[in-house]
Amino acid sequence: MSSDDGYGYMEERLLSPVTYGVAEASDRSVARAMVEAEIGLLRAFVAAGVAPESVGEAAFAMIREPWFDLDVRALARDAVADGNPVIPLIPLVRARVAQIDPDAAAWVHRGATSQDILDTALMLVGRQVSDRLQDHLRAAEGALMALAQRHRDDPAAARTLTQHAVPTTLGLRAATWMRGLGDARRRLSEVADRLPAQLGGAGGTLAAFVELFGESVAAELPARFAEVLNLRAPEGPWHTDRRPITELGDALAALVAAVGVFATDVAQLARTEVGEASVAAGGGSSAMPQKQNPVDAVLIRSAAMRAPGLAAQLHLAAGLAVDERPDGAWHAEWPALQELMQLALGACAHAATLAAGLTLNADRARANLGLSHGLIVSERLAIVLVPVIGRARFDELIVAASTGADLAALLRALPEAADLDVDALLDPGQYTGVAGRLVDQAIRRAMQDGIRP
Amino acid sequence: MSSDDGYGYMEERLLSPVTYGVAEASDRSVARAMVEAEIGLLRAFVAAGVAPESVGEAAFAMIREPWFDLDVRALARDAVADGNPVIPLIPLVRARVAQIDPDAAAWVHRGATSQDILDTALMLVGRQVSDRLQDHLRAAEGALMALAQRHRDDPAAARTLTQHAVPTTLGLRAATWMRGLGDARRRLSEVADRLPAQLGGAGGTLAAFVELFGESVAAELPARFAEVLNLRAPEGPWHTDRRPITELGDALAALVAAVGVFATDVAQLARTEVGEASVAAGGGSSAMPQKQNPVDAVLIRSAAMRAPGLAAQLHLAAGLAVDERPDGAWHAEWPALQELMQLALGACAHAATLAAGLTLNADRARANLGLSHGLIVSERLAIVLVPVIGRARFDELIVAASTGADLAALLRALPEAADLDVDALLDPGQYTGVAGRLVDQAIRRAMQDGIRP
Amino acid sequence: MSSDDGYGYMEERLLSPVTYGVAEASDRSVARAMVEAEIGLLRAFVAAGVAPESVGEAAFAMIREPWFDLDVRALARDAVADGNPVIPLIPLVRARVAQIDPDAAAWVHRGATSQDILDTALMLVGRQVSDRLQDHLRAAEGALMALAQRHRDDPAAARTLTQHAVPTTLGLRAATWMRGLGDARRRLSEVADRLPAQLGGAGGTLAAFVELFGESVAAELPARFAEVLNLRAPEGPWHTDRRPITELGDALAALVAAVGVFATDVAQLARTEVGEASVAAGGGSSAMPQKQNPVDAVLIRSAAMRAPGLAAQLHLAAGLAVDERPDGAWHAEWPALQELMQLALGACAHAATLAAGLTLNADRARANLGLSHGLIVSERLAIVLVPVIGRARFDELIVAASTGADLAALLRALPEAADLDVDALLDPGQYTGVAGRLVDQAIRRAMQDGIRP
Amino acid sequence: MSSDDGYGYMEERLLSPVTYGVAEASDRSVARAMVEAEIGLLRAFVAAGVAPESVGEAAFAMIREPWFDLDVRALARDAVADGNPVIPLIPLVRARVAQIDPDAAAWVHRGATSQDILDTALMLVGRQVSDRLQDHLRAAEGALMALAQRHRDDPAAARTLTQHAVPTTLGLRAATWMRGLGDARRRLSEVADRLPAQLGGAGGTLAAFVELFGESVAAELPARFAEVLNLRAPEGPWHTDRRPITELGDALAALVAAVGVFATDVAQLARTEVGEASVAAGGGSSAMPQKQNPVDAVLIRSAAMRAPGLAAQLHLAAGLAVDERPDGAWHAEWPALQELMQLALGACAHAATLAAGLTLNADRARANLGLSHGLIVSERLAIVLVPVIGRARFDELIVAASTGADLAALLRALPEAADLDVDALLDPGQYTGVAGRLVDQAIRRAMQDGIRP
Repeated sequence: MSSDDGYGYMEERLLSPVTYGVAEASDRSVARAMVEAEIGLLRAFVAAGVAPESVGEAAFAMIREPWFDLDVRALARDAVADGNPVIPLIPLVRARVAQIDPDAAAWVHRGATSQDILDTALMLVGRQVSDRLQDHLRAAEGALMALAQRHRDDPAAARTLTQHAVPTTLGLRAATWMRGLGDARRRLSEVADRLPAQLGGAGGTLAAFVELFGESVAAELPARFAEVLNLRAPEGPWHTDRRPITELGDALAALVAAVGVFATDVAQLARTEVGEASVAAGGGSSAMPQKQNPVDAVLIRSAAMRAPGLAAQLHLAAGLAVDERPDGAWHAEWPALQELMQLALGACAHAATLAAGLTLNADRARANLGLSHGLIVSERLAIVLVPVIGRARFDELIVAASTGADLAALLRALPEAADLDVDALLDPGQYTGVAGRLVDQAIRRAMQDGIRP
Repeated sequence: MSSDDGYGYMEERLLSPVTYGVAEASDRSVARAMVEAEIGLLRAFVAAGVAPESVGEAAFAMIREPWFDLDVRALARDAVADGNPVIPLIPLVRARVAQIDPDAAAWVHRGATSQDILDTALMLVGRQVSDRLQDHLRAAEGALMALAQRHRDDPAAARTLTQHAVPTTLGLRAATWMRGLGDARRRLSEVADRLPAQLGGAGGTLAAFVELFGESVAAELPARFAEVLNLRAPEGPWHTDRRPITELGDALAALVAAVGVFATDVAQLARTEVGEASVAAGGGSSAMPQKQNPVDAVLIRSAAMRAPGLAAQLHLAAGLAVDERPDGAWHAEWPALQELMQLALGACAHAATLAAGLTLNADRARANLGLSHGLIVSERLAIVLVPVIGRARFDELIVAASTGADLAALLRALPEAADLDVDALLDPGQYTGVAGRLVDQAIRRAMQDGIRP
Repeated sequence: MSSDDGYGYMEERLLSPVTYGVAEASDRSVARAMVEAEIGLLRAFVAAGVAPESVGEAAFAMIREPWFDLDVRALARDAVADGNPVIPLIPLVRARVAQIDPDAAAWVHRGATSQDILDTALMLVGRQVSDRLQDHLRAAEGALMALAQRHRDDPAAARTLTQHAVPTTLGLRAATWMRGLGDARRRLSEVADRLPAQLGGAGGTLAAFVELFGESVAAELPARFAEVLNLRAPEGPWHTDRRPITELGDALAALVAAVGVFATDVAQLARTEVGEASVAAGGGSSAMPQKQNPVDAVLIRSAAMRAPGLAAQLHLAAGLAVDERPDGAWHAEWPALQELMQLALGACAHAATLAAGLTLNADRARANLGLSHGLIVSERLAIVLVPVIGRARFDELIVAASTGADLAALLRALPEAADLDVDALLDPGQYTGVAGRLVDQAIRRAMQDGIRP
Repeated sequence: MSSDDGYGYMEERLLSPVTYGVAEASDRSVARAMVEAEIGLLRAFVAAGVAPESVGEAAFAMIREPWFDLDVRALARDAVADGNPVIPLIPLVRARVAQIDPDAAAWVHRGATSQDILDTALMLVGRQVSDRLQDHLRAAEGALMALAQRHRDDPAAARTLTQHAVPTTLGLRAATWMRGLGDARRRLSEVADRLPAQLGGAGGTLAAFVELFGESVAAELPARFAEVLNLRAPEGPWHTDRRPITELGDALAALVAAVGVFATDVAQLARTEVGEASVAAGGGSSAMPQKQNPVDAVLIRSAAMRAPGLAAQLHLAAGLAVDERPDGAWHAEWPALQELMQLALGACAHAATLAAGLTLNADRARANLGLSHGLIVSERLAIVLVPVIGRARFDELIVAASTGADLAALLRALPEAADLDVDALLDPGQYTGVAGRLVDQAIRRAMQDGIRP
């Protein structure tokens, strides 16, 4: 995870270890993106030919500036009076621009409304978060690909409703995790590639821009604004049509769910009694020196329990938007989206770490397969034997084996089964269906995206 | 909304008027879809060349059968023991097929697992729900298009944080609702067009199919199964990769949010004091004979408050999926998806009704614009006057007008403003920016989808 | 669970096996409670001395009537137009009363508003649901008490973050589940004992009652209404102060969480590899004849994932209540409360079944304790040995044991430990702290409430 | 709200203006409470007679110490490896104690587990938060009491489903807000007064304490620990019985809902068209100099949309707790509780500000009452007139008035109504039922708690 670099210091998050160190969606990051949005507006004015080139030069000078000395705390404080952080930001940006070029300052925030800047900033942050997430996920997928390859044919018990069901393979398990991550990653890309800029002015009609520059310039301004920021041109102002927000939120929630499945499985497989997975560096315990806790998995799971409610908050706020700017629903949206971005970043960073350090234990998996004394392949036995010995005798045989009889011996004692290769029939490793093919397919798909083990 | 037709009787939903009469995602509908999934499996066997043609004939006979006498209540009762409704369904399907063709009965559910059938059934229901939603939405969009056209240039107050901000138009408001519905409808189509079938067998390895039919037949079977059901072929079993479920849920939640915005705005605009919208047939009150309540809007809003939590439940269940079939997370998913489908159907049906009967009142909108005695265009005044009279004098002027002075008179008294057309400057209808263009764009976009007023 | 008795038929709930068969919070039950509320109002009029005794007689005749022929479906259908089910109910009640006593009919619903009746009805249902829950919980607690007694001193591994930590006992585990259920049960009782009636009239001022009967009668009427219904007298109308609803919802959610912990633990302990718990009658699998799924636990877990969102919906609706009757928030509340009551009933019924059939396996628990080759008591060893041999040597010893060395032999080889009883020191059963006392305390507390094993 | 005082610096919360400046539940506050818990354990050892008095002296020295230089960021960073912030805190506390008294250092955290400290710390923070909330609420209730008194008899329209229904009073509205706040405050007190300490050791058996000090000391230790911290003695370890957490969360969510209703009503009443409420100092807008936004109300509403999901997260985590310390559910709980405490603090602080600066406008309320031209009292007219002129003629009269006829004239023209005082009958101020009594009752109740206007 990022250190305390250009994005500025990290928040404490003492009670949210899963998001510690996540910088991309920090307050500072949002503040910086708001500045970028204001600068983008200056550049859009120049691109539209309504502001002089000197404004563009001032804008570029601002971009080159290290804005790390922005006092985010003061901004947060001053955001309370008017209820949003853009209003106190404007004079700061204006003053800074004035230092560079006094004439350019008057162009700052001209015709725009707070929501134009904040919505656009959140989209900028969203794209940056998405880029970082791609890195984490690709790392995780690569590590899982290696596991999938290594354990392609190692049998393990498939469990349903907590009970051994039939055999599967460790490799298919890893490949399934990888496939889930890849699907979620691709959807996030889709969404991130079309995050729109917001520009509508106070009431979503661009009226101030029309007054200032005429209708045709005004009508094109949102697209120019989007272009300089490398965002999608909006089909219209979306002040109360919050699909860009909910769509991003849903993609992030789906991502957290995908790493949540991986973590939940690992936590289960790492149980002392199961032992099919072990983690590189488990968290310790002062009281119990022998413990190796699957801390990454635990933290990812905590994110998987938190993310859905945040995505729901976005949908709720979206559905209760009213007027041309809502009276609370808009404000409820920001912290939920920020937290969701942080959770996704944290969960995926931990997933990359978890995957990189994960060991699957083929011997324990095989030993566990033996716990049901052959009954793990009872589905197969039914397919093979019921046609030969009938359902009633088959059921007797299963009951006998369930209560301790030696299944192999019972099978060998069947006169009808004289030709059967009982060892092969009972070998879980020979009843794994197309698990290998599924692994290969999943790997091929990931490789198309450039993932490598 | 649908009457008590082929889908079977409707549930009461005494306390959920918004979903009353919704048939497409009823229990009966789900039960029927489970049967269709079982029949689809028979057809897939035939298509794969492993079952005789007679099995296909039995399957087609089943499809032609009216399955309305399926005892859904008994099925629900018998679902409790094993925790899912597929297990008690299998013998019923088998018995029915046996009546048609005794030899075909043995093919029923062969090699499949409960989750294959239930997941596939939910996808079938999802597609059917999506189709119905398209109808509701297209009707609503058409009605809103007519309003957007009729009121394209009727000015109204844009409100932000409950207060008058600048002018907008009634037409842009209607167009924005329409655009929101259209975006959500298109996303739902995208998702609905790629809902996958599920076929993996007990552990997701297709092992039983391999045992029965060999590996190459087994490997192709999911695609054949999908094809006969007109679903997408899955990339692999998704027993614990619940993206198809969450993606559908997210699209539905976004839809409910889109109609929620429409309803929330209407409820606001229909307030006795605001009066810019009125509904065709308001609900009455036994105690207060004069009341006309915007009941459709109120019910849609109730859906907008309920849907986000259900979508969240799907993400939660997705992220806590464990093993090869989860121990509760899977079961938590079904009722949430069903309720969400019902809410979307109910909310969109009411949205169509609401839109069809909605009147926007241009006179009241204009009267409301006058409430701030011209200050609704103060943004424009600032653009025009500050360069001429300076910020300080401008502020004084606004303060004077805010406290009762006649703004037009004040403006006319300004020596610097001798050339200004004060009436035009203060006319809210002349400060609506590109509202008309935005209406036209939104209508064009909807017309591309075949929506007509 | 209840059969299809006086409460009327049960809803299907095909996709919610956990609530199948729950009758107490069914639509019919709510409809009946609405009738009871209307009858209660008649009785309140008589008690207040404003209606003639004959109205009271008609009311009692209504109570004696079997109201099971109320057409709940028609009521639900007719609830849509006005958005609530009370409006269509009033003429039905009036007509029925008129059959008994034509003069009494005019008294029906006099001065009341829909919300008075529906809110009061939900409180009546809430009390009935609470009574039934007490039965389920007491049964579950009794069964757990028996387990706590039987296994009071049977050692088992305490697990933290999935890993063996230190020893505990099976009895303490059962006692902890029991204590959790008892705490939640007592809180529910507290809440259920003070559920208030609602009576405020159209605007919460009781104005119609004042007009009809004068101020002093009107002012006392809510208390009289509450009294005849055996509910608490409200401190005032609570049309938009939804604490009675959220408080009930919170108590139910806490209850579901309490049984959720029990179920989650059982699901874990019943894992094939863990085997410390087994259930009486597990759900089967058509494909895998040997499986015994902990279905009750799985279904309870599904409820534990669903209930929190419903309680949240109640708080959300409460916090967005507006005016004197909200425009959607009220309507969002009903189905959430109903579903939550059903989930609590279903989850607790399954908890009673699960507890009654639960076996804890002391042998498997002891065997699992041995998995860490003595390190389960490493905390104890540290306490005893570090003062004697120092931290460095102690750590070496633990590392050696962790990597396969015989811990007992290592200990016996320590010169400083010559006096130690190594067998006792390493016996997990001798390092269970005050587990026995905690079991006894929990049992004593439950016994005070009349719970018996 | 608190400045950057002893609790340490405040977090930015750039995107959560509602919680800006809230110090009581900050990371620093939690860190400090963890230290207090560790110190409490030292004092408990002394109180139990097992540690020397010098340990108690060291503990008191620690309490006197300003612990504000604790590097919370470093603590957060070091919390990641093991997944909780207690583990890195222990050596810091030990080192600090060692500076005071080297011999005392060995007593730090002896026998305890991380969860003992963190759970206890959260309870300490909860109590402190509760105290602060009482202040905010009492201030808000006092201001509302003054409004209730001042406007006790000022008529206003009661609105249901957005439409005028019958008259109420501004005073009753204020009293209802006040009553809602008071109820929520009392419940919070109840809960805060019985927050328990946590002390169970690694597995919840207190085994290490038994090993160290013997069973009888160990058994009493949790009560001693609670006593020195002024918390309630737990009935047993509650590592996986999270009622103390959910109960606190529910009380906080109910509180936020109570202030949410107040804010939602104010936002509605402050609408430009309604104008019955105005706020002291509205937030401004750079673009629209005339606007006065009800920012406090808007921010409170944002909290009301966020709090329910957090309370739900607590119930979810509670219901999925497993083993003797859960693998993620515990970790999901901390940030939700912290955020919920911050939201409650922020929302209640803003509610106090909002109430203090709120003006209710009796003239506008009376003017709004006139919007329905007398029909606001149609319920009353029905009571009075239907017995005299029959339902049919009454309905005609209402229809006539609804479509523009002069209601007073129509009434005066009724021969049967010759004796009626039509002016009095139509005066909304004479149809407010027991509104005045309800105001008085609510004020009396609040005064019992010491609230003064």
